[in-house]
Amino acid sequence: MKHSYLSNTPLEAAKARYRVHLKSVGFACKTETVAVTDACGRIIKNAARARICSPHYNASAMDGVAVRAERTFGASERNPVTLTPSDYTVVDTGDPLPAGCNAVIMVEDLIEAGGGNLQIISAVYPWQNVRQVGEDLCMGDMIAPSGTALTPALCGALLAGGVTVIEVLRPPRVGIIPTGDEIVPPTGNPGAGEIIEFNSTIFTGMLAGFGAQAKVYPIVRDNKDEIRAAVETALAECEIVLVSAGSSAGRDDYTSEIIAALGTVLVHGIAIKPGKPAVLGEAQGKPVIGVPGYPVSAIVILDEIVSDVVALYYGRPGAQGETIRATLAKKIVSSLKYTEYVRVSLGQIGGRRIASPLARGAGVITSFTTADGILRIPQDCEGIEAGEEVEIRLHKPLSAIDNTLIITGSHDPLIDEVADFLAKQGAPFRVCSTHVGSMGAIFAVRDGLAHMGGIHLLDPATGEYNKSYIEKYVPAGNAVAVKGVGRVQGLMVQKGNPLGIRSFADIRGARYVNRQRGAGTRVLCDHLLAQNGISPEEILGYGNEEFTHTAVAALIAAGNADAGLGIYAAAKMYDLDFIPICNETYDFLIGKDDLAHPMVEAFLATLRSPEFKARLQEMGGYTED
Amino acid sequence: MKHSYLSNTPLEAAKARYRVHLKSVGFACKTETVAVTDACGRIIKNAARARICSPHYNASAMDGVAVRAERTFGASERNPVTLTPSDYTVVDTGDPLPAGCNAVIMVEDLIEAGGGNLQIISAVYPWQNVRQVGEDLCMGDMIAPSGTALTPALCGALLAGGVTVIEVLRPPRVGIIPTGDEIVPPTGNPGAGEIIEFNSTIFTGMLAGFGAQAKVYPIVRDNKDEIRAAVETALAECEIVLVSAGSSAGRDDYTSEIIAALGTVLVHGIAIKPGKPAVLGEAQGKPVIGVPGYPVSAIVILDEIVSDVVALYYGRPGAQGETIRATLAKKIVSSLKYTEYVRVSLGQIGGRRIASPLARGAGVITSFTTADGILRIPQDCEGIEAGEEVEIRLHKPLSAIDNTLIITGSHDPLIDEVADFLAKQGAPFRVCSTHVGSMGAIFAVRDGLAHMGGIHLLDPATGEYNKSYIEKYVPAGNAVAVKGVGRVQGLMVQKGNPLGIRSFADIRGARYVNRQRGAGTRVLCDHLLAQNGISPEEILGYGNEEFTHTAVAALIAAGNADAGLGIYAAAKMYDLDFIPICNETYDFLIGKDDLAHPMVEAFLATLRSPEFKARLQEMGGYTED
Repeated sequence: MKHSYLSNTPLEAAKARYRVHLKSVGFACKTETVAVTDACGRIIKNAARARICSPHYNASAMDGVAVRAERTFGASERNPVTLTPSDYTVVDTGDPLPAGCNAVIMVEDLIEAGGGNLQIISAVYPWQNVRQVGEDLCMGDMIAPSGTALTPALCGALLAGGVTVIEVLRPPRVGIIPTGDEIVPPTGNPGAGEIIEFNSTIFTGMLAGFGAQAKVYPIVRDNKDEIRAAVETALAECEIVLVSAGSSAGRDDYTSEIIAALGTVLVHGIAIKPGKPAVLGEAQGKPVIGVPGYPVSAIVILDEIVSDVVALYYGRPGAQGETIRATLAKKIVSSLKYTEYVRVSLGQIGGRRIASPLARGAGVITSFTTADGILRIPQDCEGIEAGEEVEIRLHKPLSAIDNTLIITGSHDPLIDEVADFLAKQGAPFRVCSTHVGSMGAIFAVRDGLAHMGGIHLLDPATGEYNKSYIEKYVPAGNAVAVKGVGRVQGLMVQKGNPLGIRSFADIRGARYVNRQRGAGTRVLCDHLLAQNGISPEEILGYGNEEFTHTAVAALIAAGNADAGLGIYAAAKMYDLDFIPICNETYDFLIGKDDLAHPMVEAFLATLRSPEFKARLQEMGGYTED
Repeated sequence: MKHSYLSNTPLEAAKARYRVHLKSVGFACKTETVAVTDACGRIIKNAARARICSPHYNASAMDGVAVRAERTFGASERNPVTLTPSDYTVVDTGDPLPAGCNAVIMVEDLIEAGGGNLQIISAVYPWQNVRQVGEDLCMGDMIAPSGTALTPALCGALLAGGVTVIEVLRPPRVGIIPTGDEIVPPTGNPGAGEIIEFNSTIFTGMLAGFGAQAKVYPIVRDNKDEIRAAVETALAECEIVLVSAGSSAGRDDYTSEIIAALGTVLVHGIAIKPGKPAVLGEAQGKPVIGVPGYPVSAIVILDEIVSDVVALYYGRPGAQGETIRATLAKKIVSSLKYTEYVRVSLGQIGGRRIASPLARGAGVITSFTTADGILRIPQDCEGIEAGEEVEIRLHKPLSAIDNTLIITGSHDPLIDEVADFLAKQGAPFRVCSTHVGSMGAIFAVRDGLAHMGGIHLLDPATGEYNKSYIEKYVPAGNAVAVKGVGRVQGLMVQKGNPLGIRSFADIRGARYVNRQRGAGTRVLCDHLLAQNGISPEEILGYGNEEFTHTAVAALIAAGNADAGLGIYAAAKMYDLDFIPICNETYDFLIGKDDLAHPMVEAFLATLRSPEFKARLQEMGGYTED
């Protein structure tokens, strides 16, 4: 096996080294000349100046007659002035003023006096009712400085100034080469060991956002010669080349070697997490970048490195995007070895912006789909405490973020379903839900980090749900449990129930899949174990924790486990057998101040609507109480 | 002449009436099915759910050997466990776990023991080093609710979830029909009376921003039958039709009549300014909108009405865009008859956001090119005082706005030139300059409404520039005049100097074009008049005021006037003759707190650079002092 090592170059040093090198080899933007009518959104190379005045002639600003103003001087009610046909010319708005005329009398101010003569009772001053040459734009005026992105209005001003074609920067073409023996093009039915290639689609969209144009090449096997050939093709056709996967230092990681053979490797290994195993190289005067295969690592490399290279191409400083300050909802521990990128979801509660960290695994693409922004933890920082104020780089417009109903707590698919109903009704807000279990809901709502959260906490002493927990953990009156749904909890087991499980006591000996600590379903599990006199050690897989009902169902369906507690809707979705255990109360804990919040009210109204109840019926396992 | 009248329907009533009617005739969006790889930015019709789990198989998370975890239990340094070839399978990262295996031992933890046997000194627990089925995404999980705009990451998640094609909303096609006898396609050389058609280009860009697709039809003469035929063609090919110009109630305004003949006119005349003469109509179940011809009116109608119709098409509430609070820099008087739209430029000084109103004429397209946002003054408001806090709807990202060097004061083309130099150097800010004359600079800088401003105010008593004015108007030490340039002021006269003007005294009898009150050049003019014993009444055109040197030059070049005071650079630009009058000091007044501001420093450094001095040389008429 080949062994080589990655460097741990600090991010800023890596970027600076790369910029300096790329500049030194003449990496810079190309231009093209386009019609101004098609130039909206394009970036102009040089300052744009008006080539003609606008108006480019003296134009009548009214319907009326054009005259020489001096001919009207002295006109008054007592001494009207009579204009003969040789004194005036009829003009419409926009008509050019005839030679010798310097004013327009509005049609409303004219009195017909027979024989084509017109009488007026007030004078006009020179240039009255005339749009004089250059009133709007003067020849030579700078319409926009170099490097301006043309807005619709600027395109209009250019055309008004007689500019019909313009030199604009040509977006760089970025070749994307997906590599890997296990990689297959998108399919709805991949085989075992086949990994769907979706990074190139993510890259294409991100590149468009940077102002670059992606060209995706066919997937290349993990073969050095084939990858090298693909890189050479891309170098001939593009300004920037990305090699997806194979950027690390393992057996099948050829990118670094290939770039070294074709040109220069500037950096291999950056002190960031995720994203460390990136290769920053250059060949034929063009950047060739090895991007890690894990999607979340890849996204960070595109955001940090590729966007910077595109900015360099355009001659701009690296864009950092918009940032906001927010209160961190959960403590984060970070390594001194890396600059760390933590994806967060954002929302606003009681005027305070809240940033909640999302999962940090490098493969967890879904954490990027729900991310509203990125918290960058510097290399020299060991972590950040909950409640501290942090700076977040935004991924979404602030207006979307501030209109977010934050639901943090126990997982139930009905939350997503309500969100979808609300979206269909055109609700002016979005729902952002995080699954941290019922206890998580109690703390998040209590601490003002969520508007509401699902809870279903059984008190074994009373058999009642939720009440005693809220009394214990939430200061009186600070939050209220609002009736949600009743739902059936039970054991999900493989189709046909091959182990013949009939009650909870039968899970002894079966491979169990559990829920995380703090989940209401975990509380139920522990209660059932105690009730049945079973100790956790007797349960195979008790430590195998998942965060959602569907995740538990998926593992049972895949054969990784034999049984797990969950709701009927999840079992139905995965076509599993279901042994009902109990009916439970799934309520929503809501902060006192948020009870009357329009977003909360809309959520609850939808939940209680007949249309939504029909949907619950369809999902199965829900009851009115 | 035809006479009809416009209504003065309040904006919200007009929009509501239009929405209700369009809904009642079934106006709504169409969909199409596209590949997810091409779907970035598109809006999904229905909730998108994962069709498969991701991973869809149990995948090795490491390079190593797959085993049954139970086979490793008890392994320790003292009691190593030996695995025979039948106990393990070699796997790479991403490989599927063979049947019967439930864990992976990392290659680093294996000791070769001969004969294909491997020794281990610690156990693995079930599912260790395995990415279990559904770890990232579970089949059935909702990836995004209905109506979500797909981000790159969401496209990635869809592909990971086995979704390869998806139903998305089809952007509405919007037919644009430019009308008018005087309208010509964009040209660099229009004839007198020809107006360049640029509204359709502005509309096209704005529509793209709304999520609609423009289709521009050829220009149609002011002929009812021809316009009607064009509308019918557009109705057959598009979902929305805009008729540009002819929307009022004058002689050549046919839009309303044509819509009435083809369908229904809902509103003709909205109580907004600019934008009043709009027609909101419907034919064949599709919106047909008469848009005023004046560009600024048209832009308001697109922003308010057309964007709302596009939102309705998509089933969304009307988007209002992002707003911020800012301090109004100048008093605004408004009419109770209209909701008024005032374009403002924005910037930040000393942490305070400042909104400066721009010109309000309906033809002034350049005020839209420099506008950063819109201040909407309600119909029931008579105006807003300077210093009041107002809400501004943003046209540009906040990050661009906050990084703005605000220069308010006397006009000199060198300001635009420095801005261009800065842009070329990739300066991380933009320059926003407003021409309000030297006195305007003094008040703006004094009141913290501008970082700096050009001043050239002659004190006739001392012959000195600027000093006495600053002493008089600015509290001591609050602002400082920093050396700018010397420049030659003189009389600009027509090429060849046909009137034989040799000194300022000779302007008696010539047609003069003046500068606005408060301009340094106006102060100079008044001083010269006094010096020469000429009274303003003797000057023909003394009341003819322009705001810039180039505007004065343009009027002389067009023959509208014979002479005007201005700088040599403007005369040269328009190929005019120039009679030098005096050398003046053009300084920059800078607020004390802004003297060390990086933007101000960068501006002054550029001004003083040898490269820029060469540019001044080229422009002509500038001196070092």
